[in-house]
Amino acid sequence: MIDLAITLDSQSSLPLHQQLYEELRRAILSGRLLPRQKIPSTRSLAQSLQVSRTTVTQGYDRLLSEGYLETIVGSGTYVCAQLPDDLLHSAPIDPATTINPLPIHLSDYGERLRQMPFSLQPSIDLPISFRYGQPALQQFPIALWRKLLSRYCLNNTAWLDYAIDWQGYPPLRDAIANYLTRSRAVQCDPQQIILTNGTQQALDLIMRLMINPGDGIAIEDPGYLSARRVFLSYGAELCPIPVDESGLVVEKLAQLPDRSLRLVYVTPSHQFPTGSILSLTRRLELLVWAEQHRCLILEDDYDSEYRYGVREASLKENRPIPSLQGLDRNHSVIYMGTFSKVLFPSLRMGYLVVPPSLVPLVAQAKWLGDRQLPTLEQHVLTEFIAAGHLESHIRKMRSHYDQLRQILVHALKTHFGDRVRVFGEKAGIHVMVQFHTPWCDAEVIERAAQVGVGLMSAQPHYYYPDDRGEFILGYADLDAAQITTGIKRLAQGLSQ
Amino acid sequence: MIDLAITLDSQSSLPLHQQLYEELRRAILSGRLLPRQKIPSTRSLAQSLQVSRTTVTQGYDRLLSEGYLETIVGSGTYVCAQLPDDLLHSAPIDPATTINPLPIHLSDYGERLRQMPFSLQPSIDLPISFRYGQPALQQFPIALWRKLLSRYCLNNTAWLDYAIDWQGYPPLRDAIANYLTRSRAVQCDPQQIILTNGTQQALDLIMRLMINPGDGIAIEDPGYLSARRVFLSYGAELCPIPVDESGLVVEKLAQLPDRSLRLVYVTPSHQFPTGSILSLTRRLELLVWAEQHRCLILEDDYDSEYRYGVREASLKENRPIPSLQGLDRNHSVIYMGTFSKVLFPSLRMGYLVVPPSLVPLVAQAKWLGDRQLPTLEQHVLTEFIAAGHLESHIRKMRSHYDQLRQILVHALKTHFGDRVRVFGEKAGIHVMVQFHTPWCDAEVIERAAQVGVGLMSAQPHYYYPDDRGEFILGYADLDAAQITTGIKRLAQGLSQ
Repeated sequence: MIDLAITLDSQSSLPLHQQLYEELRRAILSGRLLPRQKIPSTRSLAQSLQVSRTTVTQGYDRLLSEGYLETIVGSGTYVCAQLPDDLLHSAPIDPATTINPLPIHLSDYGERLRQMPFSLQPSIDLPISFRYGQPALQQFPIALWRKLLSRYCLNNTAWLDYAIDWQGYPPLRDAIANYLTRSRAVQCDPQQIILTNGTQQALDLIMRLMINPGDGIAIEDPGYLSARRVFLSYGAELCPIPVDESGLVVEKLAQLPDRSLRLVYVTPSHQFPTGSILSLTRRLELLVWAEQHRCLILEDDYDSEYRYGVREASLKENRPIPSLQGLDRNHSVIYMGTFSKVLFPSLRMGYLVVPPSLVPLVAQAKWLGDRQLPTLEQHVLTEFIAAGHLESHIRKMRSHYDQLRQILVHALKTHFGDRVRVFGEKAGIHVMVQFHTPWCDAEVIERAAQVGVGLMSAQPHYYYPDDRGEFILGYADLDAAQITTGIKRLAQGLSQ
Repeated sequence: MIDLAITLDSQSSLPLHQQLYEELRRAILSGRLLPRQKIPSTRSLAQSLQVSRTTVTQGYDRLLSEGYLETIVGSGTYVCAQLPDDLLHSAPIDPATTINPLPIHLSDYGERLRQMPFSLQPSIDLPISFRYGQPALQQFPIALWRKLLSRYCLNNTAWLDYAIDWQGYPPLRDAIANYLTRSRAVQCDPQQIILTNGTQQALDLIMRLMINPGDGIAIEDPGYLSARRVFLSYGAELCPIPVDESGLVVEKLAQLPDRSLRLVYVTPSHQFPTGSILSLTRRLELLVWAEQHRCLILEDDYDSEYRYGVREASLKENRPIPSLQGLDRNHSVIYMGTFSKVLFPSLRMGYLVVPPSLVPLVAQAKWLGDRQLPTLEQHVLTEFIAAGHLESHIRKMRSHYDQLRQILVHALKTHFGDRVRVFGEKAGIHVMVQFHTPWCDAEVIERAAQVGVGLMSAQPHYYYPDDRGEFILGYADLDAAQITTGIKRLAQGLSQ
């Protein structure tokens, strides 16, 4: 009888029959057992290994069913003849063999990604952390969301299947169109909407359809780093345009040396990270510029829901400024938004509103890229919007954030006086500040950490990073006491 | 007083104050009202329009807050001075103005997509439709899924936030690694897994990281159309390789004129659409070929869960054949799978298992492309797998589909005799058939439709579409009686 050199370990968590299977399979693949070679009967192997015959039979059965072994009636069990022995010998694949990984050729996209500096800002986890991009999750009506999930999960089984519509669930597109028309003056037929996995995918879809390596995109400087990374991953040439307290300085666009830009990317409702709101004048200028230069505008209407302080007395009348898209008459604006900030980030639901001629291609690219959004969530969100929960949640949060914002700005003025400049406090869920200190940004962060306060620098969002003493203070997931204490401690930490 | 030429419609569904707002805004933007122009007091406008003063105040307030109007204390209300009148006059944007859409420049990707023939097969909705790719949704344990959703939705609020891990929720990756190791002999550390929105996104991520226009990809012919479309959208040059009853004919790969291929795309567990299972011999040959040619293999382990008929007597022992990835020792296989077919299509949860050197780039591309999968579903799916529901559901469905499959094959043999050839009945949830008829495929579909039976041709999945009389019969969402009746009617419809 051939010596199978099999060792089974009765202490192992793997069942004995599986150990046997693995050992025999390995022996066959490594060429230790050759094709057509007879192997011991189950009875004799069981005896020699001192295991039950059932164990051996189970192991053999699996090898038989997988084509490693074959039974010849009246003769016995053999290694399958169909395994060509030259193959096995030329390529021994015993797991003990050193792995010899094949080299991987990257595409140009892959190569750009590999070379991209891609460190995230270290996540800050200190007693009081002023993180941005973090809504007040504890305020989300989770019980209501759960009720809707439960209801739609049982309602029928249609949601289990693929959606038929590539652009997204039609009633959800209706609800979004309705909402955008009312609240953002977007000129929007539901047929122009394509649902996406958040704005990040919206950016990606537009890049892949419109940008070749070397194409020009004008961006705000400072501006949203995650968008810039997407543009760079597609090989776009970026033209940074400065922003001031009225948003993108449109006249700087006009002064660019004459080159063709494909897109201008703007965050008009709440410029990231400065918080400026693009003025109506600038909006109109930008649209005229876009028409003259035949350049499309990518409007990321980020944080458009939260605007404060214009007329404190009648907050309810303080509607956000209308979108660029709503002012446009040339189909020159691609509009994008998301529910991540007003509902919750892990929802992954955003949308594009695109010029009619672009609709079929974006829908096709979305379908080819990942088919669709999860259907159940689309049904739930439709009901959430249609029943008015979205707008009432926004109203509630606007008032909540407005209080926090006032507390933050007050605390900054109290504890820092003229050692701080506050930007963009009129909108959104963060403010940008500039501290006047003798230290570089990293030292400021370090000193803040020493008093238990987490800070994030605005530096990575600048095209040319530099020590400007600018920080982005997110306040949405803190409470009033944390904000007051945090700023007080920060002032102590930053006193000389 | 200036004539504002405003008409309000009391029958409109739009509130009067909003109508007033819209009319005034339009008048300003079109230049009918000029910057610094004084507008009537709320009292006098209310009088002249015969509406309440509150209505006018509401309209004015919104225009004030949005920067169209300004109040000069003690003087009155004016159109904002900051609107440069030259701008307004050079670009009248009255909605009545004819829209002059800007041309849209497409990227090379966009242009390829635009030129791609992209008709879907018409969806068939006949009394009995043999659709493929459609699992038995009525068998899905929806109440259990709902219970898990409800539980995790309340469990805590951590799931509302972004996941920290770019590759996907770590416990879910652990559960998948465990499942793949046990059931598919995949050599898989959870660190090699990246969660994706189904296999469609997995394909897309690999393309963007590895394929430049002009790069070669070998594909199965016939093969999965949706994959081919993704490859073509990236400009890949496709090399179709024939398949037979043992799957991809590997020796045809070896006979290709010497050119460098970047990838070979295979569906070894259940070749789409023929249903062949790639034999162990071919698997080993393919791995050797890949090593010699330094070419990676993209293994789409589609339908690996369902394999029947090898040893009818002990179905429970009939494990699927091990994956290519599990046989590989050179990190030359990129493995992909999905829960769409075993759970439900609208879930959008798939995964890639990639060689270690590729992990950071795939994770980064996923993060840049759309951040992450919805967190709540990731938690629910983790529990579903960890508690054993996945494997028990698969066992139940395997037996269910096996019965249906036997009924279908029996009905085909009974009613068609030697007028039909059945392929690939050993696995998956469809079979491919070739009917011997005098008609072209479109006529066969038409005749089937006349007897109330929906059929889908295999034609679009061939590289060179032609009338072969081949059809893909999905049976998973039908019951036994529908299958028997459907095939009987079909035989009548196709009799001369």
